[in-house]
Amino acid sequence: MPKGSIGVAVVGCGIIGSAVSEALRNETALFKQRAGVTLQLRHVIERDKDRARQAAIPEKLISDDFSIALKDPQTHVIVELIGGLEPARTFVLQALKAGKHVVTANKYLLATHGKEILAAAKKAGTCVQFEASCGGAIPIIAALTESLLANDISRVVGIVNGTCNYILTQMTQNGQSYEAALKGAQDAGYAERDPTFDVNGTDSAHKLAILSSLAFGAEVPFDKIEVSGIDKLSDVDLKYARDLGYVCKLLAIGEKTEGGLSLRVHPTFVSVDQMLANVHGSFNAISVYGHAAGQTLYYGRGAGGKPTSSAVISDILEIALGTAQLLFANLPILTDKKKLNFLPSSQIISRNYLRVTALDVPGVLAHITNILSKHGISLAAINQPESKVGHSVPIVITTHEAKDGAVLKAIKEIDQLKTITAPTVRIRVLQ
Amino acid sequence: MPKGSIGVAVVGCGIIGSAVSEALRNETALFKQRAGVTLQLRHVIERDKDRARQAAIPEKLISDDFSIALKDPQTHVIVELIGGLEPARTFVLQALKAGKHVVTANKYLLATHGKEILAAAKKAGTCVQFEASCGGAIPIIAALTESLLANDISRVVGIVNGTCNYILTQMTQNGQSYEAALKGAQDAGYAERDPTFDVNGTDSAHKLAILSSLAFGAEVPFDKIEVSGIDKLSDVDLKYARDLGYVCKLLAIGEKTEGGLSLRVHPTFVSVDQMLANVHGSFNAISVYGHAAGQTLYYGRGAGGKPTSSAVISDILEIALGTAQLLFANLPILTDKKKLNFLPSSQIISRNYLRVTALDVPGVLAHITNILSKHGISLAAINQPESKVGHSVPIVITTHEAKDGAVLKAIKEIDQLKTITAPTVRIRVLQ
Repeated sequence: MPKGSIGVAVVGCGIIGSAVSEALRNETALFKQRAGVTLQLRHVIERDKDRARQAAIPEKLISDDFSIALKDPQTHVIVELIGGLEPARTFVLQALKAGKHVVTANKYLLATHGKEILAAAKKAGTCVQFEASCGGAIPIIAALTESLLANDISRVVGIVNGTCNYILTQMTQNGQSYEAALKGAQDAGYAERDPTFDVNGTDSAHKLAILSSLAFGAEVPFDKIEVSGIDKLSDVDLKYARDLGYVCKLLAIGEKTEGGLSLRVHPTFVSVDQMLANVHGSFNAISVYGHAAGQTLYYGRGAGGKPTSSAVISDILEIALGTAQLLFANLPILTDKKKLNFLPSSQIISRNYLRVTALDVPGVLAHITNILSKHGISLAAINQPESKVGHSVPIVITTHEAKDGAVLKAIKEIDQLKTITAPTVRIRVLQ
Repeated sequence: MPKGSIGVAVVGCGIIGSAVSEALRNETALFKQRAGVTLQLRHVIERDKDRARQAAIPEKLISDDFSIALKDPQTHVIVELIGGLEPARTFVLQALKAGKHVVTANKYLLATHGKEILAAAKKAGTCVQFEASCGGAIPIIAALTESLLANDISRVVGIVNGTCNYILTQMTQNGQSYEAALKGAQDAGYAERDPTFDVNGTDSAHKLAILSSLAFGAEVPFDKIEVSGIDKLSDVDLKYARDLGYVCKLLAIGEKTEGGLSLRVHPTFVSVDQMLANVHGSFNAISVYGHAAGQTLYYGRGAGGKPTSSAVISDILEIALGTAQLLFANLPILTDKKKLNFLPSSQIISRNYLRVTALDVPGVLAHITNILSKHGISLAAINQPESKVGHSVPIVITTHEAKDGAVLKAIKEIDQLKTITAPTVRIRVLQ
């Protein structure tokens, strides 16, 4: 690779691929002026050539044949922006084997085959850059692999899916139902036609796998992450959240505990005075807790062509500058990860919000509080509105810290009471 | 410098120096495990040797003679943590000349002699790292010099002084007067005995000089920054801020406008729904606006020994990894800055809060609004409480965007009215 000048092939010309290609065609003077290096777009590989033409890519750069980029000795970096597992995985492995550096925004691929891909790069003496895989424009990968290297990191807590955060913001601020908010997100272009991976928490879990593997320098098998999404949330609970001084966010949480790593994605009540509670719409933010730095937080646009291209191009620039290769060759947290234990989910300790729906008959509250007490769960607050005797009422409870196993057992027992008229809702509260 | 193993001398054993020295003595295994490199503390240079002894530095590492570190071929990095201009400047220049890399947290030195120091490093083929100079643990220098390299940056807006933010938070949340809040900050260790540089905005301006020189790749002579502090703020205006949906923050603002760079530090009303409004106590945060990334924000502890040591040690690790040298040798925004024009302060455009104190007599409001109108200043809102005729009342006005020159002329004219009983207070409102 010539010093200070590198050739780039972009594979996949969707929203991000188009934005990256456009920047590589029109903004090289800016990159040269700021970073002192020259980037050259040599190929745009896209199965659907018309799509590339619509993105105003010059005809001579367009191809539907990946091997053209592979064989070009002037192409030093392959930017994989197809998404999904195949053919992305095959292309990335072929690129690395051919001695190319790889830049990718593909969190699904990295969360699933990251170990194989990073090992292939190590073997080939090249590197893999993936700033755009988590948090769009937010430089969270740089924070974890460079700026926070002096820290023993105990915790990563993030809003890492813009679709979910947009929907939750609409539900919270405008009192919309989940269905209406999802429809609005689709109309506004914030949610896919098939939003399953976003709303069920899978996409957030992919990102958590990547972030926690770097934060803790650990192997993170994807199936170790406990995942629940926002697709079963009721606007009723979001209203109670507000009354209690919280907002509901879909959080990805990675924690190092004495019993092992705890990794989970779930809707969470966040106190309104915390920074994460003020992350609205399609924005993302990630808090990292280090033993020296304390809490640091990184905020920005989590998706979109231009914002994501900022991360992709900084990855390319760092390869052109040579810094990416040095980090990749040296950092144990990148390519020499530890095998750590994982905390069984029953052992996770958190505060809880419970909404119990019960007939308003004498003794019902005593039954509920007795069950919670029996399982060692201490109440922080409880509220039952007045109602007519014999009608169903919501009893809203927040608990102090308790183990998940005990909480779930208590809920099961509560829901078996004859006076309970609907399943109890449980949402965890961020500490 | 041997690959992966470097010797470090710490100069100055105050709060930060003690924390850095402690980490270098006790946490090298952590750094090796995460970054793959070995750091060795070789000298702690401190004029007051007893101070170093109190920080539990082993006697054999302590010296009051800087030349010991200079002459030691096994010392590759000098960490300057004395603060102030001299002898810091001389030590740094000597270190660079002797072929040592320099890490410093000294914003005063960099804001004043940055050009000379960076040029000396370039000449010597070494590098200067200064992550800890702005925002404590927050990796804002890394964001500007690496992660956001693909961006044309238009704006940097930050809360960069923890002392001021602590005082303003106390005044806002607890209704304290400035004097009481300052006293509390001193008692809590958040403010120095002589807090002049903090509260009059000078410290924030030092940091703004550094941040804007990197964001815009420009030379920033310190005297181009317009500075006003929090030392003349009244708790009355902070109360009005709250009523209007704002909080008052001391902001450092760097903006690229068509008329040139605008650089300024002043108390500013920030809408409560913005992230910066939710930065409380001694925390800092910096928003950066790039043409591709859009807004990104970085938040964390702005001061303190441990948090600042996180930034200092990441700087040392990046030298050990070799990435710092590559960036320093290549980035024009670091060592080949442009000379840009600066916007005259009269041309700055912003929204404004005005508190006019006037006798409640017929016609007074008409006089005031006529003057504003004459100067092309359009009102966004106005509020005058009922009072007894002939008594002084506060008239609270917010304006739409207006040029500073026009606003100041209008205020001067208003304050010359016979009905005005106290000077008008003007605070700018963040867009």
